[in-house]
Formats: sequence, structure tokens, C-alpha cells
Amino acid sequence: MKEINKILENRTINSWVCRFNHSPSQINKPHEADAELMEIEGNNSSLLAVTIDSVAEEIAEGLYQDPFTMGWVSVMSNFSDLAAVGADPLGIVMAISFDPTKGEKFREQIAKGMAAACQELGVFVLGGDTNTARNISLTGCAFGFVPRNQRMTRVGCQAGDVVFLSRGAGSGNALGMMRLAKLSEELFPERLYRPVARIKEGQMIRKFATCCMDSSDGLLITLDQLLRVNNKGFVIKADWEKILESNVFKFCKKTGIPYWFMAAGIHGEFELVFTIPQEKVNSFLSTASGIGFHPIRLGTVQEKPSLIFALDSGKKVAIDMAPLRNLWVPGCSDLSYCIQAYHAWGKKWGLE
Amino acid sequence: MKEINKILENRTINSWVCRFNHSPSQINKPHEADAELMEIEGNNSSLLAVTIDSVAEEIAEGLYQDPFTMGWVSVMSNFSDLAAVGADPLGIVMAISFDPTKGEKFREQIAKGMAAACQELGVFVLGGDTNTARNISLTGCAFGFVPRNQRMTRVGCQAGDVVFLSRGAGSGNALGMMRLAKLSEELFPERLYRPVARIKEGQMIRKFATCCMDSSDGLLITLDQLLRVNNKGFVIKADWEKILESNVFKFCKKTGIPYWFMAAGIHGEFELVFTIPQEKVNSFLSTASGIGFHPIRLGTVQEKPSLIFALDSGKKVAIDMAPLRNLWVPGCSDLSYCIQAYHAWGKKWGLE
Repeated sequence: MKEINKILENRTINSWVCRFNHSPSQINKPHEADAELMEIEGNNSSLLAVTIDSVAEEIAEGLYQDPFTMGWVSVMSNFSDLAAVGADPLGIVMAISFDPTKGEKFREQIAKGMAAACQELGVFVLGGDTNTARNISLTGCAFGFVPRNQRMTRVGCQAGDVVFLSRGAGSGNALGMMRLAKLSEELFPERLYRPVARIKEGQMIRKFATCCMDSSDGLLITLDQLLRVNNKGFVIKADWEKILESNVFKFCKKTGIPYWFMAAGIHGEFELVFTIPQEKVNSFLSTASGIGFHPIRLGTVQEKPSLIFALDSGKKVAIDMAPLRNLWVPGCSDLSYCIQAYHAWGKKWGLE
Repeated sequence: MKEINKILENRTINSWVCRFNHSPSQINKPHEADAELMEIEGNNSSLLAVTIDSVAEEIAEGLYQDPFTMGWVSVMSNFSDLAAVGADPLGIVMAISFDPTKGEKFREQIAKGMAAACQELGVFVLGGDTNTARNISLTGCAFGFVPRNQRMTRVGCQAGDVVFLSRGAGSGNALGMMRLAKLSEELFPERLYRPVARIKEGQMIRKFATCCMDSSDGLLITLDQLLRVNNKGFVIKADWEKILESNVFKFCKKTGIPYWFMAAGIHGEFELVFTIPQEKVNSFLSTASGIGFHPIRLGTVQEKPSLIFALDSGKKVAIDMAPLRNLWVPGCSDLSYCIQAYHAWGKKWGLE
């Protein structure tokens, strides 16, 4: 896992983690799972899964402007972490920092977004803590149980496994690009960004998968992180029409923004990226189809830890996500510089 | 519970709660317990206890200036909620919003405070989420299990029960008064504010108590809230030398600040306030003494829902905490006005 420290965000996490002792009851180590997995005394068949996630930067940076989105994502982002470990959800508690000068209607729309997300998933807000602050911050902590022998982590894929994506990606980055490049909202209305945590799918995937992670940080960053924790590589077919959500694909067509931007940006969409052993793929796909779930086949796992794009031209390029990932320093990044750097990176790898 | 809505903070909580459906697996209703209590499928003997709590306003308002205090309290405040329901802790996850311009040393001291608090309690940070923000915010979510038949909530005290406090109170309000009135820090150094969650005591109290709540909002507000959720009253002997922590008592003596301010303010100290049926008091006290725990006897529960102070003079006054509680609007309250209002309130009830 030494490659993990090439990424600024991982180093930031480690700078906190190194101060704390590891619980003897905890199954996973740092970076190894989307949710923390705990042994429970007197229960040999289940693990407790817990995760915590804040929606704050996305609000401060103007990515989410509709309070309904803020509430919706604060719930979905947490249950998405539970989905990625294959958990059966129990509930969520919320710590809400709200600026009362925003007004009662704004507050109500946040609450409605949270309630609608809970209803979509059939889960409940159990309680919380309210604070007053100038910056809105919505922190959820979701928890549930996962069968011990079907828990998923980010670690475990083997060369030859097939890589899947639960549904089309890119909506987070389309919204991000629309906002940050100050395009007309008509090109990608915020209401198109309603990611759904793939709880039901996760409960099925857990019976087959060798590793799983949600795409909350964007598709390519997710693959890059899986690469680093597994010390394995991925060969991905760059078929953007298949990989991207249809609204996102249209957005790129209309604006001329490169398709790969929608996979390489940092604003994800809470789909699941997971690997299935070759010999289980048929059985997995038929079970998936039985619940109306049609995952997207991205490519395969290889032994060598590099991220390889198989381009339409037939060419294969081994890309390095580290320079892109390390561009983003929340609140400090200069957007036009970042976009230039993305283009330069794309040219370097022959993506443009 | 209609009295609950006389308090602004309770109304704020209800304005969120009313938007959400109640989980059929949840034992407690809003305001009824310090932590949320959940049924677990296939487990009839235990409940899952979960709580979430942010340290943010205390930092923004300058109450905590030492980063070690910030980290320490962010852990202790959460485990204190678990203590108040009598839970055996499993761990905590943390969502940290940090301002990188504060520097590496500041960040490290926060982490050290968190780690030291965990060590004090024998618990572990299991994971978390880091964000960048101008205002520091430390949100913890702690969880554990509690034996179903020994769970404690805020509800259940009966007339005749004896009211106890786990240890001397007032350190939060002493720190608050020192900061807000801009007194010399020598009068109450911040390092004297190192509240400890009473986990061990809670595990013992749960075998005897009829209700329990932590004093995180200050002693009198805790009693006032217990009054409102139980629709019962309390007769409290105003023996400040016994009730206040010795450093707090000295602070009042030195500064001339009325003793009762230390109980009536909003910055608490995470002790447990609980009630024991008269017939169990002896057995409780001898068990407590066996673990070196010597709780403070505050008074008794009465049928009529009022908070009664038995003063040194022999006089009994029924005080109303609502006007004091509703004074505080985070970020909006004028301090000198608040202090004046406290003095006026104290004169009204004959406390000064």
C-alpha cells in the first residue's frame, strides 16, 4: 500500500489516522473499506458497518445551490458507503450546522431532501444534533449490519476479475463542470443530480464480488484508489457512451467538453465499482438481471498496477491519475488552472 | 411533553424531526434519550445505541482556544451520551472540518486531544471523513450496545426518587464565564476543563436508575429538560459547595460571580444526572462506593412539574428556567444583555 501516499488526500487522512490506535475489534485498516467494519461480541455471523460523511465543501463552493440537493446527498452519500460494503442499513443520525439567516424555507427544503432520500431507500433518520454556523454543513453517520462472510472491502480483486460499474457515471462531474465553468444551468440542471445509494444492488453484489468501492470521488479516482490499495491494475475500455449516464453524455456532446472529464473529475455520483471473478460473471449477471439490475462491464483486472485505457483507436495507454488527484486542494484550487492541467494531461495520454 | 415546546432549542430540533418518519426499530422518541436506541434483528438481549455530536459553536465563539480541548471534548461529548443510556461503547467515527491555514501543529494538537480522550476511556477512533472549511468543526458519532433491560432514557423518574449528580458540576460554565466576560485566564485556565464521559459509572447506574441524562447543557438546564420530558418536578438543595466542582467553587469565591450561575449557564460538563428509587438508594450507594464512585445527592423527585430550590435560608423557590434557556441564540446573543438577564432572573427568585 505504499502507493497510497502519492495522493495528497490519502496523506491528509493518514496524518490523522497515525495519531490513533487501531481497535482490536475492527476488521478493516485505513483506506481498505468504504465503511468501518466491526466485530460484535457474541455475534459470529454479522459485522457492524459504520460510516460518516459530510456535505459541506460542495455547498461552500457553490456546487449544490438547491437545498433539496444538499439534504438528498447528505443521506445518499452515507448509505452509498454502506452499499459498498454490502450492508443491510439500520439508520442514520445527522449533525446539522445551519445558518438561520438562510430562512425557514431553505431549511425546510434541506429537510425535505433528506426525507425524500430516506424514503427512496426505505431508511430512517434516527436523531441528530443541530448547530448554528455561517457555513452549512450536513454530516451523516449511517450504520447497518453485514453478513461476515459476505462483507465487501476495497481489497481483494485478482488478475482476470471483471470490473463493473453499477450504472452510468459522470453526473457529479457534469454538475461540477457546469457550476465551476459558469455554464448555463440549462445545460445540466442541478435536479439531474439525484444520486441513489445502491443498497439493494450492494446486497446482491456482496455474494459475488472480490472488491467494491463507491464512485463518490469520480470513476477514475475510484479505480485509481482501488489500484493503490490492491496493488493490481485495470484495463478499461474507454467506451464513453456506455460508461456515462445518458444526460452526461448529451451534456458533453452539446458543450464539447471531453467525455473523459466526466470520469476524471473529483465530484462523483455514488455508483458502485466492483470486481467479479471471471468464473462467476455469468451467474452474477443472471442474478443481477433477476432484480432488474444491469451493471456496465468496464474491463478487467491485471497483475501490473497500472490504469490502462483501451481507446477506440485500438491503442492502449497507461494513465497516471496522481497529477490530477493532487491538483485539487479544497478552497485553494484555481479553476482555470485545473481545467488547463486536465487538458494537458489528456493530451499527454492521447485522450484528446 | 407539551412543555417541551416552550424551549426554543427543542422547537428547533422539532422543526427538523417533524419532517422525518419514525423508524419502527427505534425504542426512543425525540428528546427521550441522550443516544438513539435501536432494536437489532435476531438479538433480544441488546440494543444498539448511537449518538452524534458536533464541537463547532464552542470553537467559533472562542470558548475553546486550545486545540487539545477541541479534540478532547469532541470525543468525550459523544461517549457521555452513550454513558447516559448505560451503553458499553464500541467506538467512534469522526468528521473533521479543518482550516489548513491554522497550521500543522494546531491540527496535531486536536488529534492529540482526541487520542488522549480515547485512551482515558479505553475506546477507539475507527475512521472518519476530513474536510476543509474556514470554521473548525469536529463531529463525532459514537456507538455501542446496551443490555435491553438496563437501558436508560431521560424518561421514567417517579415522585420520591432521589436525584443524583455523578460528580461536581460547573466547569463548563466557569470556562464560559471566564471567556465571555473576558476575565484573566489565570482565574480559570482552559486546561481545568477536561470533562470525562462517565462510561464506567453509567454501566453501574443502569442497574438502578429510573432516568438519566448528561449535563452537557449545564446542570439546571438538564434538570429542566428532565422535568419537561417526565412531567415531574425536582426539589434541589442549593448547597453549592457540594454541587460545584472545587475549582469552580473557588473561581466563584475569587470573582464574586454567583454560584448558581455555574449551574444555570449553557456550557455543561458531561456529568450524569440521574434518579434512583428511594428503596434502592442504599444498595446503589454501596455498589457505587465499591467502584470508588461517590455521586452527589441533589434532592428528590416530586409529582408537580416544577423545579424547586431549597435555599440555605430554609426558603423554597420554584424557579422557571425557560426565560434563561431562551436567551441563548448561538451567534446572536449579546453577552452583557444575557448577564444582566441572569442577574435579574436570580433576583426574581431570591437567589442573589
